[in-house]
Amino acid sequence: MAHINVPEGIPGIRSLVMFRPETGQHLYELAQVLLRGESTLSEAERELIATHVSSRNNCSFCMNSHAAAARYLYGEEDAIIVDEVLNDAETAPISNKMKALLNIAGKVQILGKEVTPDDIAAAKSEAATDREIHDTVLIAAAFSMFNRYVDGLGSLTPTDPEAYVAMGERMAKGYKLPVPQL
Amino acid sequence: MAHINVPEGIPGIRSLVMFRPETGQHLYELAQVLLRGESTLSEAERELIATHVSSRNNCSFCMNSHAAAARYLYGEEDAIIVDEVLNDAETAPISNKMKALLNIAGKVQILGKEVTPDDIAAAKSEAATDREIHDTVLIAAAFSMFNRYVDGLGSLTPTDPEAYVAMGERMAKGYKLPVPQL
Repeated sequence: MAHINVPEGIPGIRSLVMFRPETGQHLYELAQVLLRGESTLSEAERELIATHVSSRNNCSFCMNSHAAAARYLYGEEDAIIVDEVLNDAETAPISNKMKALLNIAGKVQILGKEVTPDDIAAAKSEAATDREIHDTVLIAAAFSMFNRYVDGLGSLTPTDPEAYVAMGERMAKGYKLPVPQL
Repeated sequence: MAHINVPEGIPGIRSLVMFRPETGQHLYELAQVLLRGESTLSEAERELIATHVSSRNNCSFCMNSHAAAARYLYGEEDAIIVDEVLNDAETAPISNKMKALLNIAGKVQILGKEVTPDDIAAAKSEAATDREIHDTVLIAAAFSMFNRYVDGLGSLTPTDPEAYVAMGERMAKGYKLPVPQL
């Protein structure tokens, strides 16, 4: 049971934004711009950054749901990439640019000051743009928030893997504040 | 110098949201609702939670600027409360409810799962409402994001204490996306 009186049976962050839509609205709008807005990083790559950070923060709900979204967006043939990154980002079959960006995201997950000029130089040497570096840092920072929000209030974390498959497919279509159930 | 090409001479998060206003807009709107919106926690108390978390995340820019906003909002006579909380929240001259909420915020700063049912029960026994607990967790989570965003991109951190006094007074009036300088 969640630590506060949120709608019953609703998993994760959805139950929290239904409790407090005034803040939830801005959280969903931020996720929509960062993960679905115009970008030179694919939606699958951005979900991968979110998944990587959520895994490192040990947030099961965010990790499983964003991993499912990333698998859906990569498509059946490449979905395995998500599991390879979760296992070891350094040896996963992704571009060197994505490896450099995931390294930065991992540093941000620890704390902002962990990111060094060398980490940034490594990403730039793989042709990462300032905008891609900015968005990687902000996605990693935002999931440092979402993970704490979801677990800090003890929201419902489904244990059935099938629940996440359906969630991932819905999330792939975009982030929109759920309409309160009357 | 910041890790990416943001406007020169602009401190902290302002330089980052000017670089990317599409995400900055939602960050400022979230801060405005959480820290200035209608609440049974005073604006000074909410800035105190933000300051406490930023201090624990070792983010000088956020700590100094939100401490200045909290001091301004408490007013000259009570401004010392901010420094007493920064020194030791447990012995500071604040209500038991605020102590219980700052304890929760400190747990969220570490990681969401650190918050225990006992931490929540302690806050409720001091008459903290679900909404106050929700907002405390989300403020702590949001500053876990803001702190990482500001330091992860190496944004400019002023060293002159006077710069923060002026910033705190401006922040006390509300959070609004800065207009890009032409």
